[in-house]
Amino acid sequence: MKFDKEGNVTSFEKKKTELCQELSLQARDLRFQHSTSLTARNNCIIIRMEALRAVVTPQCLLVLDFRGLGLERWLVLELAQQLASHTNSLPFEFRALEAILQHRVNALQSRLNEVHPVILDTLESLVDPKLLSADRTKLHILLQNSKSLSELETDIRVFKDSMLKILDEEEIMEELCLTKWTDPRVFEESSLGIDHAEEMELLLENYYMQAEELGNDTRELKGLIDDSESVIFINLDSHRNVMMRLNLQLTMGTFSLSLFGLMGVAFGMNLESSFEEDPRVFWLVTGFMFLGSGLIWRRLLSFLGRHLEPSFPPPIPPVWKRNLKTPDAKTGLR
Amino acid sequence: MKFDKEGNVTSFEKKKTELCQELSLQARDLRFQHSTSLTARNNCIIIRMEALRAVVTPQCLLVLDFRGLGLERWLVLELAQQLASHTNSLPFEFRALEAILQHRVNALQSRLNEVHPVILDTLESLVDPKLLSADRTKLHILLQNSKSLSELETDIRVFKDSMLKILDEEEIMEELCLTKWTDPRVFEESSLGIDHAEEMELLLENYYMQAEELGNDTRELKGLIDDSESVIFINLDSHRNVMMRLNLQLTMGTFSLSLFGLMGVAFGMNLESSFEEDPRVFWLVTGFMFLGSGLIWRRLLSFLGRHLEPSFPPPIPPVWKRNLKTPDAKTGLR
Amino acid sequence: MKFDKEGNVTSFEKKKTELCQELSLQARDLRFQHSTSLTARNNCIIIRMEALRAVVTPQCLLVLDFRGLGLERWLVLELAQQLASHTNSLPFEFRALEAILQHRVNALQSRLNEVHPVILDTLESLVDPKLLSADRTKLHILLQNSKSLSELETDIRVFKDSMLKILDEEEIMEELCLTKWTDPRVFEESSLGIDHAEEMELLLENYYMQAEELGNDTRELKGLIDDSESVIFINLDSHRNVMMRLNLQLTMGTFSLSLFGLMGVAFGMNLESSFEEDPRVFWLVTGFMFLGSGLIWRRLLSFLGRHLEPSFPPPIPPVWKRNLKTPDAKTGLR
Amino acid sequence: MKFDKEGNVTSFEKKKTELCQELSLQARDLRFQHSTSLTARNNCIIIRMEALRAVVTPQCLLVLDFRGLGLERWLVLELAQQLASHTNSLPFEFRALEAILQHRVNALQSRLNEVHPVILDTLESLVDPKLLSADRTKLHILLQNSKSLSELETDIRVFKDSMLKILDEEEIMEELCLTKWTDPRVFEESSLGIDHAEEMELLLENYYMQAEELGNDTRELKGLIDDSESVIFINLDSHRNVMMRLNLQLTMGTFSLSLFGLMGVAFGMNLESSFEEDPRVFWLVTGFMFLGSGLIWRRLLSFLGRHLEPSFPPPIPPVWKRNLKTPDAKTGLR
Amino acid sequence: MKFDKEGNVTSFEKKKTELCQELSLQARDLRFQHSTSLTARNNCIIIRMEALRAVVTPQCLLVLDFRGLGLERWLVLELAQQLASHTNSLPFEFRALEAILQHRVNALQSRLNEVHPVILDTLESLVDPKLLSADRTKLHILLQNSKSLSELETDIRVFKDSMLKILDEEEIMEELCLTKWTDPRVFEESSLGIDHAEEMELLLENYYMQAEELGNDTRELKGLIDDSESVIFINLDSHRNVMMRLNLQLTMGTFSLSLFGLMGVAFGMNLESSFEEDPRVFWLVTGFMFLGSGLIWRRLLSFLGRHLEPSFPPPIPPVWKRNLKTPDAKTGLR
Repeated sequence: MKFDKEGNVTSFEKKKTELCQELSLQARDLRFQHSTSLTARNNCIIIRMEALRAVVTPQCLLVLDFRGLGLERWLVLELAQQLASHTNSLPFEFRALEAILQHRVNALQSRLNEVHPVILDTLESLVDPKLLSADRTKLHILLQNSKSLSELETDIRVFKDSMLKILDEEEIMEELCLTKWTDPRVFEESSLGIDHAEEMELLLENYYMQAEELGNDTRELKGLIDDSESVIFINLDSHRNVMMRLNLQLTMGTFSLSLFGLMGVAFGMNLESSFEEDPRVFWLVTGFMFLGSGLIWRRLLSFLGRHLEPSFPPPIPPVWKRNLKTPDAKTGLR
Repeated sequence: MKFDKEGNVTSFEKKKTELCQELSLQARDLRFQHSTSLTARNNCIIIRMEALRAVVTPQCLLVLDFRGLGLERWLVLELAQQLASHTNSLPFEFRALEAILQHRVNALQSRLNEVHPVILDTLESLVDPKLLSADRTKLHILLQNSKSLSELETDIRVFKDSMLKILDEEEIMEELCLTKWTDPRVFEESSLGIDHAEEMELLLENYYMQAEELGNDTRELKGLIDDSESVIFINLDSHRNVMMRLNLQLTMGTFSLSLFGLMGVAFGMNLESSFEEDPRVFWLVTGFMFLGSGLIWRRLLSFLGRHLEPSFPPPIPPVWKRNLKTPDAKTGLR
Repeated sequence: MKFDKEGNVTSFEKKKTELCQELSLQARDLRFQHSTSLTARNNCIIIRMEALRAVVTPQCLLVLDFRGLGLERWLVLELAQQLASHTNSLPFEFRALEAILQHRVNALQSRLNEVHPVILDTLESLVDPKLLSADRTKLHILLQNSKSLSELETDIRVFKDSMLKILDEEEIMEELCLTKWTDPRVFEESSLGIDHAEEMELLLENYYMQAEELGNDTRELKGLIDDSESVIFINLDSHRNVMMRLNLQLTMGTFSLSLFGLMGVAFGMNLESSFEEDPRVFWLVTGFMFLGSGLIWRRLLSFLGRHLEPSFPPPIPPVWKRNLKTPDAKTGLR
Repeated sequence: MKFDKEGNVTSFEKKKTELCQELSLQARDLRFQHSTSLTARNNCIIIRMEALRAVVTPQCLLVLDFRGLGLERWLVLELAQQLASHTNSLPFEFRALEAILQHRVNALQSRLNEVHPVILDTLESLVDPKLLSADRTKLHILLQNSKSLSELETDIRVFKDSMLKILDEEEIMEELCLTKWTDPRVFEESSLGIDHAEEMELLLENYYMQAEELGNDTRELKGLIDDSESVIFINLDSHRNVMMRLNLQLTMGTFSLSLFGLMGVAFGMNLESSFEEDPRVFWLVTGFMFLGSGLIWRRLLSFLGRHLEPSFPPPIPPVWKRNLKTPDAKTGLR
Repeated sequence: MKFDKEGNVTSFEKKKTELCQELSLQARDLRFQHSTSLTARNNCIIIRMEALRAVVTPQCLLVLDFRGLGLERWLVLELAQQLASHTNSLPFEFRALEAILQHRVNALQSRLNEVHPVILDTLESLVDPKLLSADRTKLHILLQNSKSLSELETDIRVFKDSMLKILDEEEIMEELCLTKWTDPRVFEESSLGIDHAEEMELLLENYYMQAEELGNDTRELKGLIDDSESVIFINLDSHRNVMMRLNLQLTMGTFSLSLFGLMGVAFGMNLESSFEEDPRVFWLVTGFMFLGSGLIWRRLLSFLGRHLEPSFPPPIPPVWKRNLKTPDAKTGLR
C-alpha cells in the first residue's frame, strides 16, 4: 500500500491506522478531504494534489494509494532520481516538496498544452471569413475544450490559493521546515540566520508564480474564445446580409417580370382585343414587356442602393482619434 | 416545541421566554433574523442554517421549531447517532457543530446534485448540432434550473461568508469553544497547549473548504451554460445561413425561369408574330427558354459562389500560434 | 422646521444657525452633502438617509426639513411609538438609530418588493415559448424596472458601505454611543464590561446583514433578467429558423411549379408543334407537368433534409458527464 | 508664467529652475508626470489635476502654465474670491486645496452632465418599439458618448484612487497640513487636540465621496446602455419575426396560386383536351382554380399556426414566484 | 556573453558558474524563471524584464545573453549614455534601475502605440453605418489586434504586480538600495534621514503609476471594442430589417400580380367562356387585373404598416429623465 524512499525505493503495504501510529498522526489527518491541500502536522507534511497523496517526514517520503493512477512511471523513474540528487544542500523535505509541486505544476501545464493548440486550431478554422456557416462538429469540440479550460482554471486557482494561504502565514511556513525542528544543529544555526523558512518561502513563491503564469495563459485563452465568438457572429451576420441583398435584388427582378408578364397574359386571353391582326403590335408589346421589366428592375435596384444608405451621410467626426501620448512627449518635459 | 439530546432524545414544548431564562439568553438572541448565522452568546452557540434553528450548550443541543420542515427523519435517525458517537475525544459542542455544518453542506451538495445532471442533459440536447431550432420546453427547464443555480450560489456564498467571518476573528473562535470556558480542567490544559481553538479552526476551515469546492462547481456550471448558449446561437445562425443560401439559389432559379417564361408568354399572346406557321420555331423557342433558364441560373450560382468569398483571400497569417512554453523548455536552462 | 421627541412630539421652527449653536455643532456638519451618511460629532449623531435628515442627541431626536417628503405619516404614527417603547433597556440613541435604520431598510425592501413581481411577471410573459415576437410594451416595462433595479442596487451598496465603514472602525462605533460619554455612571460601568459599543456593533451589523440580503436578492434578479434575455433570443431565433425552413420548402415548391409550368407555357405559344391534334398529348403533358413538379419538389425536400444534418454525425461523446462527487463518496473513506 | 495669490492676484513669469530654488524643491518634483497627483514636498503641496498644475505653500497658491487651458475665467473670477473668503477659520492651504478639488469635481460633474442627457435621449429614441430599424446616426452618437463615458469613468477612478491613497496613509495627511509644521503656535496647539489632520481627512473624504457618487452615476448609466442594447436587439428580432411570418404567409399564397395556375396553363396549351366545346367547363375549372388556391392557402396557414406552437404546451409552472419575504413577515416573530 | 558598464562599455564572455562565484550568488539566482522579476540578493539586484536579463551591482550593470534580442541598439546607444549622466546625485544602482524600468515601460507603451491606431481605424471602418456587411478581413485584423491587446494587458498587469509586491514590503525596498549597505558613509547618513529607501519608493512608484496609466488605456480600448461590436451588430440587424421590409413589400406585389394573373390565365385557357366575341371584355378584364393587383398591393402595404406598429401605442413615459443633481443645486444649500 505504500512507498518508502530515501534514494532507494521500497514498496510495502500497511493499514492506515498502523501508519498513523507510526507517524503519531491522528486518523483525521490522513483523510485527505480536499482535492488540494498542504499542511504540516506533528513534524510531517501531508500533501494532496488531486490523485497524489503523500506524507513527507524528515527522513522519507511516503506516497499513499499510488496504484492505478498512472503515476507509477513518474514515481519510479523520476521521483526517486530527483530525491536522490544532492545538487543543493537543502534538507530532504525541500527536495520532496519541490518534486511534488513541480509534478503538479507540470501536470497543470501539460493539461493546458493539450487544450491550447486544439482551441487555437478550432478557432482559426471557425473564424475563417470564407465560411458561410460554422462547422458544427468544430463547435462541439470548442465547447468541450472550453469546458476543460474552465476546469483547468479552477484547479490552477485552487492550487494558487493553497500556496498563497501558506505564503501569507509565516507560522505555517516555519512548520513546514521539518528538519529545523528535529535537527538541533540546524535549529541553532537558523536562530542566527533565518535560513530555512526563507528558502521555503522562495520555493513556494516560485511555484506560486508558475501557477500565476499558467492562470494568465488560461485567462488570455478564454478572452480569445470570447473575441472569436463575436467575430464568428459578425461573420455569419455579414454573410446573411450579403445573401439577403442578393435575394432582394432577385425578388425585385421577379417582381418586374411578373408585372410585365401580366401584360402578356392579358394578351394571351381568348378575348378579342382588336390588335390581333397587326403584326407590329406583337413586337411592340413583347419589346415593351422586356424593356419595361428591365427598366423597373433597374429603378428598384437604384432605389435599394439609396435606401440602404442613411438618409443623410452623418458627418462622422473622427472624434476618437485622441492621440496617444507618446513616451517622448511625456518625458520631453524633463 | 423542543428537542433535548445527549445521546438520547427527549422532545418537549416550551415557550421562548422560558427558554431564554433557562439559558440566560436575551430574547433578541433567539430571533434568528438572518438566514445563516452562527454566534456565541453567554456559553451557548446559536445557529441558524435556513430552516434549522439550534442552540448548542456544553451539555446538549436544542433544535427549535423542527416540525414541518422535513427534518424529522434526519433529526431522529442520524443526528442522535452522530452526537452519541465517541470516536473522537472532542467535547460535545464540537460534535454538535460538526453534525449541523455537515448537514448544511450536505443539503447544499444535494441541491447541486439535483440541478447538475438536469442542466447537463438539457445543455447536451440543446447544443446538438443536428437540431434546426431549440426545443422551447428545454429552454424553459434550463432557465428554471439556472435560476435555482444562482440561488444556490448565493446560499453557498452566504455560508462561506459566515464561516469566513468567524475564521477571521480569533476572538469569536475562542468563544465557540464552550467547554473550555465552563470546564476549569480543560481551561487550564488549554493555557498550556492552545488545543481547542485550533481544533475549532480546523473544523470550520474544513467546512469552509467544502463550501468553496461547491462554489467552484457552481461557477463552472454557470460558465458552461454561458458557453453553451453561445454555441446554440452560432448553431442556429449557421443553420439559417445554410437555409438562406439554398433559398437564394432557388430564388435564382425561379428568376431565370420567369425571365425566359416571359418569352413563352410573349409567344402565347393572341398577336400575330409571323412565325406561327414554321414548325421549327416551336422547338427553337422552347429549347431557347429551357437552355437560357439553365444557363442564366448557372451563371447566377457561380456569381453567388464568388460573391460570398471575400474579394481577395486575406493572407490569414497564423500569427497567434505562439508556441506555449513547454515546461521542458522552461527548465532546460538549469 | 423641526421635531422634538422623547416620547411626546413637539414641532417647532428654528434657523439652522441657531440649531448649530444650541447643539454646539459647526454649520458644516449640517450640510448633509452625501445622500447617505452617519457620523458622530460632538455628542450628536448626524444622519442622512436620502430624504430623511436627522440629529440624534442623548435626549432627543431632531428630524429636519421633514415637510413634503411623504414622511409625515411615518413620523407621527410609528416613530414616536418606537422611541417611546421601553422594551429594551438600551439608551435613547440606540432606539432612535434603530428606528431610523429600520425605516431605511424597510424603504429599500419595499422598493424591491415593488419592482420584483413586475419584473417576474414581465419576464414570465416574455419567455413564453409560444410567442413569435416579444411584446414591445413589455420590453419597455422591463427596461424601466431594470433601471429602477440598478438604482436600487446602488442605494443598497451605498447603505452597506456606510455601515461597513463604521463597523470597520472601532473608534467611530465608540463615538456613536452617546450616552456612554455623557452619563458618567454608564461610562464607569462600561469601563468594566465593554457593553455599549458591542451593542452598537450588533445593531449596525444586523442592518448591514439585512442590506446584504437585499443586495443578494437584487443580484439574483439581475442574473435572472440576463438569463431570460438569452432565452428570449434563442426563442426568437428558433422561431425564425422554423419559419425559414417552411419558407424554403415552399420556395422549393414554387420553383418546381415554375419549372414545369414553363413546359405548359411553351405549349401555349401560338407556334406550331405538330402535336396539336393528338388528344393524348394533352393528358400526357399535363400529367408530366404535375407529376414532375411533385417529384422535383420531393427531391429538393429530401435534399434539404440531408443538407441540414452535418455531413457525418459527430460522435458526440458525453465527455462532460463527470459524475459529481457525492457527499457519500467523499466521506466514505473515513 | 505664474500666478501669486493671497487674496490679490499677481501674474509674473519665472523659469522653472528659479521657482525650484525659491521653494527649495527639486526639479523632479515639478515634472508633473501623472495626470492626477497630490503630494507634499518640503512644506509645499504639489497638485496636478489634468490641465491644472499648482503649488500650494502656506502663504500662497502658484498656478503654473495656466495659459491656453480655458482656465483663465475660473482663475480670475472664482478662485481669487474663494481663497480670500474667510468664512472658516482654517489655514490658507485648506482653502486652496478645497478650491482646487472642488474645481476638479465640478469639472468631472459637468462632463457627466454633458454626456448624460445625450445618452438618455439617444437611448430613448433607439428603444422606441415602433422603429423597424435603428437609426444609424443615433448609434454613432451613442458610441461616441459611451466612449466619453468610459474615459470619464477612468478619470473618476483615478481621482478616487489618488484621494484614497492619501486617506489610507495618516502620514501623508499630516504632511499636507502645512501650517501645522511652519507655524509653531499651531503645532503646539495641535499636539493637544489632533485638529488639523482630522480636518484634512474630512475635507479629502468629502471629495472622495462626491467622486464616489459620480462613479455610481456613470456605472448606472453604463448598465442602462447595456440593458437598452439588449432591448434594441430583442426589438429588431421581434420585428424581423413578424415580417418573416407575413412573408411566409404570402409565400404560401403565391405557392397556392402557382399550383392551381398550373392547371390554367395546362388548359391554355394548344393541345386538344376534348373539353374545348363545353361552356360549363370554363367556369368549372376557373372556379376550381380560385377555390383550390384559397383552400390550400388556408390549409397552409393553419398548418403554420400549429407548427409555431410547441407540440405540447409545456406545463409552465410558475415556480419562480417565490414570495419575497416581506419585512412584516420578517419582523413578525419578535 | 556579458556587458560591463560604468560609463564605458566592455563586452566579454564568461560562464554562468564563474559569474556566480564572482558575485557570490547562488546558481539558482541566475535561472530567471519568471518573465518579470526584480529581486535583491547578496548586494546585487537581479532583474528580468521579458528578454532583458540583468544584474546590477553597486559598481556596474551586467546585461546577460543580450545577443539576438534586438536590444543591441538600445544597449549601446542609450543605456551607456543614461548610466553615465550625472544629472542627479543618486548612486549608480538607481540610475541603472531607472534606465531598465524606463526601457520596459517604453516597450509596453510602444506596443500599445502600435496596436492602438490600428484598432481605432479598424473599428471606425467597421462601425461605418453605410456598410451592409462587415469587411471580413478587417474583422480578422481586429481579432488579431484584440489578441495582442490582451497579451499586452497581461504583461502590464504582471509588471504592475511585481512593482506592487516590492512597494508593499519596506524590507525589500531597503535591500534594493545597494549603496546604502556597501558604502559606510552613506549608511551613516541614511540612519539620520531615511533618504535612499524613500527615493527608491518614489522611483518604483513612478513606474508603477506609468504602468497603471497604460493599463487604464488598454482597458478603455477593450471597452471600446466591446461597444463597437454591439453597434456593428445593431447596424447589421437594422440593415437586415430594412431589406426584409423591402422584400416583404415586393413579395406582396408578386402575390397580388399572381392572384390577378390567375384571372388572365383562366381566360387564356382553350375553353369556351362565351365572352370571346365581346371586344369590351378584353379591356374590362385587363383593366380589372392591373387595377385589382394595384389595389390589393396597396391594401397589403397599409396592413404591413399597421402590423409593425404595436397594437396600441404604449404611453412611453419618459420616466427615466431623472434630472441629474447639478453641482449648483448640490452646493446651493451651504
